[in-house]
Amino acid sequence: MKKKVVLAFSGGLDTSFCCIYLARERGLEVHSVIVNTGGFSDEELQEIEKRAYALGVASHAVVDETENYYQSCIRYLVFGNVLKNATYPLSVSAERVSQATAIANYVKKIGADYVAHGSTGAGNDQVRFDMIFNILIPGVEIITPIRDLKLSREAEISYLHEHGVEFNAEKAKYSINKGLWGTSVGGKETLTSHDTLPEEAWPTQVTETGSRRLELTFSKGELVAIDGEEMAPVRAIQKLQALAQPFGVGRDIHVGDTIIGIKGRVGFEAAAPLVIIKAHHTLEKHTLTKWQLSWKEQLASFYGNWLHEGQFHDPVMRDIEAFLSSTQEVVSGKVFVELQPYRFQVIGIESDHDLMSNKFGSYGEMNNAWSGEDVKGFSKIFGNQVIIWHKVNQED
Amino acid sequence: MKKKVVLAFSGGLDTSFCCIYLARERGLEVHSVIVNTGGFSDEELQEIEKRAYALGVASHAVVDETENYYQSCIRYLVFGNVLKNATYPLSVSAERVSQATAIANYVKKIGADYVAHGSTGAGNDQVRFDMIFNILIPGVEIITPIRDLKLSREAEISYLHEHGVEFNAEKAKYSINKGLWGTSVGGKETLTSHDTLPEEAWPTQVTETGSRRLELTFSKGELVAIDGEEMAPVRAIQKLQALAQPFGVGRDIHVGDTIIGIKGRVGFEAAAPLVIIKAHHTLEKHTLTKWQLSWKEQLASFYGNWLHEGQFHDPVMRDIEAFLSSTQEVVSGKVFVELQPYRFQVIGIESDHDLMSNKFGSYGEMNNAWSGEDVKGFSKIFGNQVIIWHKVNQED
Amino acid sequence: MKKKVVLAFSGGLDTSFCCIYLARERGLEVHSVIVNTGGFSDEELQEIEKRAYALGVASHAVVDETENYYQSCIRYLVFGNVLKNATYPLSVSAERVSQATAIANYVKKIGADYVAHGSTGAGNDQVRFDMIFNILIPGVEIITPIRDLKLSREAEISYLHEHGVEFNAEKAKYSINKGLWGTSVGGKETLTSHDTLPEEAWPTQVTETGSRRLELTFSKGELVAIDGEEMAPVRAIQKLQALAQPFGVGRDIHVGDTIIGIKGRVGFEAAAPLVIIKAHHTLEKHTLTKWQLSWKEQLASFYGNWLHEGQFHDPVMRDIEAFLSSTQEVVSGKVFVELQPYRFQVIGIESDHDLMSNKFGSYGEMNNAWSGEDVKGFSKIFGNQVIIWHKVNQED
Amino acid sequence: MKKKVVLAFSGGLDTSFCCIYLARERGLEVHSVIVNTGGFSDEELQEIEKRAYALGVASHAVVDETENYYQSCIRYLVFGNVLKNATYPLSVSAERVSQATAIANYVKKIGADYVAHGSTGAGNDQVRFDMIFNILIPGVEIITPIRDLKLSREAEISYLHEHGVEFNAEKAKYSINKGLWGTSVGGKETLTSHDTLPEEAWPTQVTETGSRRLELTFSKGELVAIDGEEMAPVRAIQKLQALAQPFGVGRDIHVGDTIIGIKGRVGFEAAAPLVIIKAHHTLEKHTLTKWQLSWKEQLASFYGNWLHEGQFHDPVMRDIEAFLSSTQEVVSGKVFVELQPYRFQVIGIESDHDLMSNKFGSYGEMNNAWSGEDVKGFSKIFGNQVIIWHKVNQED
Repeated sequence: MKKKVVLAFSGGLDTSFCCIYLARERGLEVHSVIVNTGGFSDEELQEIEKRAYALGVASHAVVDETENYYQSCIRYLVFGNVLKNATYPLSVSAERVSQATAIANYVKKIGADYVAHGSTGAGNDQVRFDMIFNILIPGVEIITPIRDLKLSREAEISYLHEHGVEFNAEKAKYSINKGLWGTSVGGKETLTSHDTLPEEAWPTQVTETGSRRLELTFSKGELVAIDGEEMAPVRAIQKLQALAQPFGVGRDIHVGDTIIGIKGRVGFEAAAPLVIIKAHHTLEKHTLTKWQLSWKEQLASFYGNWLHEGQFHDPVMRDIEAFLSSTQEVVSGKVFVELQPYRFQVIGIESDHDLMSNKFGSYGEMNNAWSGEDVKGFSKIFGNQVIIWHKVNQED
Repeated sequence: MKKKVVLAFSGGLDTSFCCIYLARERGLEVHSVIVNTGGFSDEELQEIEKRAYALGVASHAVVDETENYYQSCIRYLVFGNVLKNATYPLSVSAERVSQATAIANYVKKIGADYVAHGSTGAGNDQVRFDMIFNILIPGVEIITPIRDLKLSREAEISYLHEHGVEFNAEKAKYSINKGLWGTSVGGKETLTSHDTLPEEAWPTQVTETGSRRLELTFSKGELVAIDGEEMAPVRAIQKLQALAQPFGVGRDIHVGDTIIGIKGRVGFEAAAPLVIIKAHHTLEKHTLTKWQLSWKEQLASFYGNWLHEGQFHDPVMRDIEAFLSSTQEVVSGKVFVELQPYRFQVIGIESDHDLMSNKFGSYGEMNNAWSGEDVKGFSKIFGNQVIIWHKVNQED
Repeated sequence: MKKKVVLAFSGGLDTSFCCIYLARERGLEVHSVIVNTGGFSDEELQEIEKRAYALGVASHAVVDETENYYQSCIRYLVFGNVLKNATYPLSVSAERVSQATAIANYVKKIGADYVAHGSTGAGNDQVRFDMIFNILIPGVEIITPIRDLKLSREAEISYLHEHGVEFNAEKAKYSINKGLWGTSVGGKETLTSHDTLPEEAWPTQVTETGSRRLELTFSKGELVAIDGEEMAPVRAIQKLQALAQPFGVGRDIHVGDTIIGIKGRVGFEAAAPLVIIKAHHTLEKHTLTKWQLSWKEQLASFYGNWLHEGQFHDPVMRDIEAFLSSTQEVVSGKVFVELQPYRFQVIGIESDHDLMSNKFGSYGEMNNAWSGEDVKGFSKIFGNQVIIWHKVNQED
Repeated sequence: MKKKVVLAFSGGLDTSFCCIYLARERGLEVHSVIVNTGGFSDEELQEIEKRAYALGVASHAVVDETENYYQSCIRYLVFGNVLKNATYPLSVSAERVSQATAIANYVKKIGADYVAHGSTGAGNDQVRFDMIFNILIPGVEIITPIRDLKLSREAEISYLHEHGVEFNAEKAKYSINKGLWGTSVGGKETLTSHDTLPEEAWPTQVTETGSRRLELTFSKGELVAIDGEEMAPVRAIQKLQALAQPFGVGRDIHVGDTIIGIKGRVGFEAAAPLVIIKAHHTLEKHTLTKWQLSWKEQLASFYGNWLHEGQFHDPVMRDIEAFLSSTQEVVSGKVFVELQPYRFQVIGIESDHDLMSNKFGSYGEMNNAWSGEDVKGFSKIFGNQVIIWHKVNQED
């Protein structure tokens, strides 16, 4: 009886090659699987399924992880206002971790002996897949034909041709990866340090020309309504994305450290993530204490980096999630946002938990809760140690 | 012989009141001083001097701190990419600390017995002034007539009138504070949580309609040339500000924690600071290692907060400056920026120290410096502890 | 009808003075209260109660906070291995916060109009009491006769004498504060920077001369058994303290920053806290991942400092507690300790969650989970960024 | 002409095997080198040299790195009070990095084509050597016969025997590594989680029975005199080690994370490092501000961990060193220490920079620099945000 391999399948050239290769050269029964984290339409998924069967897989499965991806990961990226290097919402990094985890679970479910992925030897994904498989399905051998064989695009196409599968030889000008938390765009410009992506490279073209006000409602840190219409967070993200991306907001280029130590550069469009994070952060500035904001910043920065490096299953990530969840207790209220072509602005907020309440003294206005004398005393004591330091060390 | 008081004088109603009050009610010889941190033109300074003498001061001095302010403070805000709460370049906070320090030095210079400032009891400035005076001129008594007397605007005007000084009764709609590192704007909208400033509130109106490319040259972290024209950093900031502010970039509203524990909200326009920080940060993403970026982020965030709270003279600030300076050794190169109405974009960089060099492997492209086997080994070892953790705790 | 004041009463000279003063000079109905956080025996509490009634209080209450103190505070100090400045288990700081909170609740319960404490103007306690009362019972006025009147010891004694109360004029040579989490000792030596406490100053004299092995059992971070005998954590701490303190372990002198900016120095004996923290920490080194240990260290250090400064009611403390609790999920097992006169040693641990399992490779011994090739690959990739940095910058 | 290999040579079985193997099987000209970081006596070095030539090396070199090791590394471990996991002074980790760096420089100096080390595939050292060679001598191939061949001890001995070299078959019961910053001890007990080392395993036996007072003088953070006798820091460490180790102080067992993800356990004796660090830290508690202490703790903890992981050549290490050096400006003065069998105590300090000066107010004693009113105001403002938070959220 043939041994089973689960193949992470996208329908592209590399994983199509893997289908044939694993069956013919390795003699395995190929079970392809695609994990949807919000980037595929039903039509696309059907198309990919058709292609898988045409490549002769023993079975093909679609795992819809969108809700789970949100619950186990995106939620915390919002709580933490995570923007890697102050820029990138980790669109691809977070998704890949979620996909690898879902594939590992699928391997366990069908009792496969092998797991295969189509990563090359030059990116982050190989590390994420390898590592998460090593962690979650330690007995299962990992096969990576593309990384191991280092074939050229042409060699893959001709191998497929030999086995009766035709593949369009033309490579897309830009490589696109789409998911619930944003779309990445790589191309010849992103391989340089000095060029930016041309307008036509962006998957969503800018069609909105006017301005649009939005009211976003958050409940304990989660987006639960848009313009007063309540909906589940995943649905809210999707709706906001549809509304905002045609304004061209949330586009940028991220330059960052890959897991393997080189620098990488990638474009992304992520209107909903950027708008949500900025809106959520503004609500937090009104509702959280100084030290909550400060520690959230530090912990969330690490959380994002460690997630990016594929270390989602380190238990420290659960500990940080516990911290972040605790901070969201009072992060509820409305945030007003204005979209305009290529930019957006957070107008303001409204919250029962707003600490900037006139009841307790306004910045720049006198009030009755404390006196000038109190502040005088405060200033003296608050500076006391530095006063002493300067007295002691003044001759230095 | 009368005792001397140095008065931090701005020419506004509050400090005009102080001039008369200190002389008449306290019997002091008033020496007014104004510290320019880049916000005043020569005409404005002459106007203020005239007003001071009209109020009967014994002497009036202008201290130009712009260069010193840059060298001792702004430089490090650039090195650290400091944006408080990911938004605000600390335009006013940094300036006030610099001014208080300069006034303390002036008090020492002329041997005054008292020092006076016009702060109210509701803001950050009182703490900064009090604390820095306590630290640097510990024997000198601080007088704060506005905070202590809590007079209404009308009462101050009528007191001045009684002493032969006329003051325009109408209050400016927006309170503006201008300096080298940006201009703050406060008004009735910023006293709420939900309103934004109207277009006319911004000191610089948007007059540019097209787009403009800029080439910014940094040397060890400092801006030293614009479009190839070399100039000293202070001059470069001023020039960039003049170029960029008419595009309306660098405008935002900051919501943050005041030193006295309440939340405050303030508008600001700071085109040069924002463009410089984003450009500088991008250059760093290309030239610094992962852990340099990570620690800079943490230390700079604290540096900004502690500066904001007036604690500039804590020796820990010198230690952090030593750290930040050390990181800038290789932060040299050109950054390309594009200005457009209300937004700007960092296009890319060019640097001899760029770690994203094709010579050492490109993201997503295979190379010869390491093999797929190397990464396989890396992934195994990099995830080793978490692999073990899951094996040990799998039944939990 | 007289207004009610709740007085934090210890039975000492200062609070005895307050009893009379509040009744006679301020015309208040005095309700004394003492909060036991594990430092008082029943006999002592009865003695104090007798004294209170002798001073004419309207009522006297004993609030036993020991269990609550453990649950809301000490537990987290253990989870975080909190030793301020790597030395001090925060014996007094933690206790005072717990007492202030309990007193505030008692004020609410009996509906008092005032609350009084006997702190002087020179220590930490005044800030902790003032601040926690301001937070939890904001409408209630705070009276601090000792701080306000600045009376000498003699003046207090003679005032009491005038009102028919005799007080022993002799001051104890050392001021002692005892609680569940340790005993502090202050005296003339601790007022200097260079002297240490003499043997006789320590409340518990060293009577054990041999050695004693202990087996401590932890469950999710809490001490739940000693030498196999199960008991509640509070009881376990008390028992361990009784066993270990006669060995003279857990004695040291803490030098640290007070809330008011001066440096302070205090002796303490805290055998149980020190033994528990070192044992617990060792168990964690075996069961937690590298980054759990690292983040725990940072967060716990802040938690301890912020608690010390009386800021227990900042919601960030709840967030950190959520983090710390999450980390303790697998911190279960036995720790072997050896006590000897003046020192103790953690011998080792035994835990189902021990990550140092031979099954997964021993340090220094070869194994089958990975190969030399894997580590070679790891080393190459792990150092990749620094390799590139040196290549790029080698001429610098 | 034969190609040259530099071999890191210790004179032990593994590197003796390498000598023969590299010459005979790989046909290389073997140049052995030993780097002394303070652990070898002249006699030992001569013995090792003799053995190298007996094994037929083309040349043998001794590089004395002790001073350089101190200047480039130990100094900062003192500045940072670095004790990994609050226990281990990084005796071996720091040394290995220093040795690898010195060997890389030696490779460059003699223009070798290869570099070889005798590490196995199960420890930290292989990663440190590999990585530092990859960084500093990127073109030079690394050969690791022991890791690659995985020979048993017996196989190595018999291979040597075949080539005319006799080697004592008996393995030492404990593996010892000695250097300027401490001696590590591994053996069968340290391979378990629950056993401690027996008395006889410790290289230095306890011979002192009384007590001994020491006066240690620090200048800008460095130990420069013992009992008033000035000497260079390296000499002072050596002298203190000779004085203190016979008391049995500075012995402990470290449990920690290896670079390769497993947990490791090792005994160490490091009297001088422990005494110096505790003394230095006490001096800092008296001379540094609260935030200097806090940030030093965080940065030094990372510095120690990153050094331990062999990442000494990451430029972030230079940045942290700049920070640490800056903090030491005022860390000068005397520290009084008392040694007793198996324990030591820091008695106190004396410093011109002591912030705990009676001149500026003593803890617990009233003073004139501030009033009770000042502290009252301070408490109100210091707690202001949390007061507001509780008012806003009280119904929650």
